[in-house]
Amino acid sequence: MNAIVQKLLHDSNVEAAMLAMGKAGRDAARLLAAAPRDAKDAALKTAAAELRRHTPVIIEANKRDLATAEDAGKPGAYLDRLMLDPDRVEGIASSLESIAELPDPVGEVIAEWDRPNGLRISRVRVPIGVIGIIYESRPNVTADAGALCLKSGNAAILRGGSDSHHSSMAILTCLAHGLREAELPEDAIQIVPTIDREAVGYMLRGLDGAIDVIVPRGGKSLVARVQEEARVPVFAHLEGVCHTYVDRGADIDKAIEILVNAKLRRTGVCGATETLLVDKNAHEDYLTPLVKALLDAGCEVRGDSPTQAADPRAVPATENDWGTEYLDAIIAVKVVDGIDEAIAHIGQYSSQHTDCIITECLGTAERFLARVDSAIVMHNASTQFADGGEFGMGAEIGIATGRLHARGPVGLEQLTTFKYVVRGDGQIRP
Amino acid sequence: MNAIVQKLLHDSNVEAAMLAMGKAGRDAARLLAAAPRDAKDAALKTAAAELRRHTPVIIEANKRDLATAEDAGKPGAYLDRLMLDPDRVEGIASSLESIAELPDPVGEVIAEWDRPNGLRISRVRVPIGVIGIIYESRPNVTADAGALCLKSGNAAILRGGSDSHHSSMAILTCLAHGLREAELPEDAIQIVPTIDREAVGYMLRGLDGAIDVIVPRGGKSLVARVQEEARVPVFAHLEGVCHTYVDRGADIDKAIEILVNAKLRRTGVCGATETLLVDKNAHEDYLTPLVKALLDAGCEVRGDSPTQAADPRAVPATENDWGTEYLDAIIAVKVVDGIDEAIAHIGQYSSQHTDCIITECLGTAERFLARVDSAIVMHNASTQFADGGEFGMGAEIGIATGRLHARGPVGLEQLTTFKYVVRGDGQIRP
Repeated sequence: MNAIVQKLLHDSNVEAAMLAMGKAGRDAARLLAAAPRDAKDAALKTAAAELRRHTPVIIEANKRDLATAEDAGKPGAYLDRLMLDPDRVEGIASSLESIAELPDPVGEVIAEWDRPNGLRISRVRVPIGVIGIIYESRPNVTADAGALCLKSGNAAILRGGSDSHHSSMAILTCLAHGLREAELPEDAIQIVPTIDREAVGYMLRGLDGAIDVIVPRGGKSLVARVQEEARVPVFAHLEGVCHTYVDRGADIDKAIEILVNAKLRRTGVCGATETLLVDKNAHEDYLTPLVKALLDAGCEVRGDSPTQAADPRAVPATENDWGTEYLDAIIAVKVVDGIDEAIAHIGQYSSQHTDCIITECLGTAERFLARVDSAIVMHNASTQFADGGEFGMGAEIGIATGRLHARGPVGLEQLTTFKYVVRGDGQIRP
Repeated sequence: MNAIVQKLLHDSNVEAAMLAMGKAGRDAARLLAAAPRDAKDAALKTAAAELRRHTPVIIEANKRDLATAEDAGKPGAYLDRLMLDPDRVEGIASSLESIAELPDPVGEVIAEWDRPNGLRISRVRVPIGVIGIIYESRPNVTADAGALCLKSGNAAILRGGSDSHHSSMAILTCLAHGLREAELPEDAIQIVPTIDREAVGYMLRGLDGAIDVIVPRGGKSLVARVQEEARVPVFAHLEGVCHTYVDRGADIDKAIEILVNAKLRRTGVCGATETLLVDKNAHEDYLTPLVKALLDAGCEVRGDSPTQAADPRAVPATENDWGTEYLDAIIAVKVVDGIDEAIAHIGQYSSQHTDCIITECLGTAERFLARVDSAIVMHNASTQFADGGEFGMGAEIGIATGRLHARGPVGLEQLTTFKYVVRGDGQIRP
């Protein structure tokens, strides 16, 4: 770790230490922007080998974190996310290797054209600069986020949950070894070396212009705080209130299979369907089997009056249910008067994350895909496919519902920006 | 104009009126996002015809604005930017027609791929939503900015300088006629119908989430205020501190011609060169003719000691001159130790707008183009080419030096975002 930062922290000067990290990140970013692909990939592969070699050390550090978290009475799901075992360390290592295998986005010519006066204009991908990542106590994010930033030529300033601090520092040691061996700046991946909560506030204010974008990874309260306080751009989604609309043109067997998967495969992910909309013109045939399938699979159904009539096990929905992200085995169900009311309902209640139509009628599907203004719109597929890996991006740092720069899964490409390169031969402007 | 907004303004409730404009803009944006190209182009062409037909009315309104501005003692250059005559109205009309001729960015498939499970994923261009434009008293911006937003499927909320209010409202009447005839929502282009200065503050706070991005067009003080106060993203450049570096490998005749154009063609534009850097290894041959050409053309030269030695007419530069945007016939000149010192100097003082290298050595040029991290980097061409029109984008709403979403000239494409469309046939996630 950066010696200046350590000295400042030792003197309890958190603000100066954070600003020094920002400056170190900015300097590292300048070198990384020009780093060849080979060096970045070598750093990732060496780090992966180092992680494997140091598995016992990492697990030892993780045990310290776990003990503290247990003493603090953290719940089981929390401890599970924090826990590392040899399999999970291997998973982290091979994830670094997969990121090394991805194409390098930096330097890609996105567009190129010639002007009548002979100027040749290229739009070329370049790294964004310095990315700040704020996350909860999940040690694997330290490696994943650091690796995605490195591969895309960005410096990373990581601030993980304090309960994972020792695990993250042990992982960072391996990443730093990889960077050193590849002759890349160690400050390319920095971890905020204090659990002082003020540190996050400094990051959100951008470290004097050093941070270009913040990526929060965690629950709604973390993202809400970041979106509220950040003075720099944020790539994030606050919540995933995802809809599946079953149209009169749906194949009911396909609809049931997709819906049960979309709701129940994993209920805690942001791409899980939270509201089912059923076309009024088909609801006599479709509503009962759809609701029955959900109830039989153990899902609580909160519905409007037709839904309650369709199955006595359904309970009444209130206005509050439309727009709620349950992240649980609960679904809100509403009958709508065809595709246009479905689109209007989604326009009002969706969090613009992922929304899906199920129908065999292509015209209706295209209308839905064109009119629903969400980061991801789907036809005849489970909303749980909303994921950078499933999209074939190799990896993602998160999913964004903002409208600018990044929308949907944020992969390597979204961690870059571009510049214009203009090549001439003496042209002057008349 | 929106009747609700008018009523609220009549009751002097500026905040409620502004929020009502935001809501009207948001509603219009929803309709515009689905508007076919033909309708948008028809609206622009009808508006152009209407502008021509109403030239006398527009000039009459402009005379009222001019009279007020003259009484207030505004300077000649200011009055010139405000003034409309039949030629200028014709210019505005034909500019609308040119924008109609540009390709429609909305709906363009930017990327498309298939997944092994049969899902087809497309990244499709969609409008951003509602764009707020804040500008000085230049009536042509009302038409240009409104037209660019319309063509890209966005609603525009325009706030021009109060001195151009009558001219802008006369132009808006023509735009509204075009929208009506094309059966598009009139609220697609709104002008803040009050000169109340608080209105800008409400826009900068985003009108309750209704504004997606702010584009300020005007001088440094306007842009600085917007960047400081805005709670929504901003596309802008604060200043254009542009550099031209003459390398040892330059053709001196070409260098002189480019440099004089880059500095003096128009000194008030953001792409004008403000600092000349000359390679130490060539300065004995190159510095004197470069400085002489500038001085002979009427440019003040502020230089380091080698520059002062090269021509007695050069005056000393102070630290303050590096990094100053003169927007005048003044240039700062410094001798640097080759390309790497040039890159370092630009890294320190450039506003990351446009920077240029002049050399016949392609290797050196490529090093400069790769390492200088500005929105536009150039080789052997005048920095005054930094312009959306010159780039072949047809038109621009401004130039951005931010790193996210838009960099360099902001044309139709940069006024769009994208969404992912996923087409399946019943896929569920394992």
